[in-house]
Amino acid sequence: MADTLAIDETTRLISSDKVDGTTVYNRQGEKLGSVRNFMVDKRSGKAEYAVLQFGGLFGIGSDHYPLPWDKLSYDTDLGGYVVDIDKERLTEAPRYSDQSPAYDHDYGRAVHDYWGVRYPFI
Amino acid sequence: MADTLAIDETTRLISSDKVDGTTVYNRQGEKLGSVRNFMVDKRSGKAEYAVLQFGGLFGIGSDHYPLPWDKLSYDTDLGGYVVDIDKERLTEAPRYSDQSPAYDHDYGRAVHDYWGVRYPFI
Repeated sequence: MADTLAIDETTRLISSDKVDGTTVYNRQGEKLGSVRNFMVDKRSGKAEYAVLQFGGLFGIGSDHYPLPWDKLSYDTDLGGYVVDIDKERLTEAPRYSDQSPAYDHDYGRAVHDYWGVRYPFI
Repeated sequence: MADTLAIDETTRLISSDKVDGTTVYNRQGEKLGSVRNFMVDKRSGKAEYAVLQFGGLFGIGSDHYPLPWDKLSYDTDLGGYVVDIDKERLTEAPRYSDQSPAYDHDYGRAVHDYWGVRYPFI
């Protein structure tokens, strides 16, 4: 227990340039993919999306799925994020490949609506 | 005004892998350096530190200064962060060069104490 606390303490923070590659699991502990990047509010410093990466080889040709932060929980034992979503649910999910979308309010609302998370802005 | 809003909206978010290089200014609008990276809480997704980079050439041999997030404000006109600190105050500030510290509670407390920001943990 003391060990766990010590590990938690030192690995609580992650550098923004080390986010890429963090594994993403489903509730059954199966690997779904990895985090490509966070989208962070410049003012508040709050990550609003984790962009998940599935398929493709070394990120080339893979799809990027922005997930509202509230859909994620961090599992210290697994050392990655757990998302409560079915693979099938990803089929129709908002995604992009190489060209990042504008991440404006229309896009943000669409992503939040799809995942059933309240969009916190107008 | 409408233009500003439109710009604000689309550039409100920054990708975690694009953080590096964001300019940091003092209150007088003078360039102090740039952001090297954010340190983000894996669970909450909240950036706790912006690590500032001063001196050195292309990041080689430069010093890294972790600043508690509350010391920063984002200026959309400047397109960078403004920090209310004197260059002289940096002389004795916590810093590191190549080897990142553990960012454990002892370190966090020391950094917050130095900058006069309450450390929000035990």
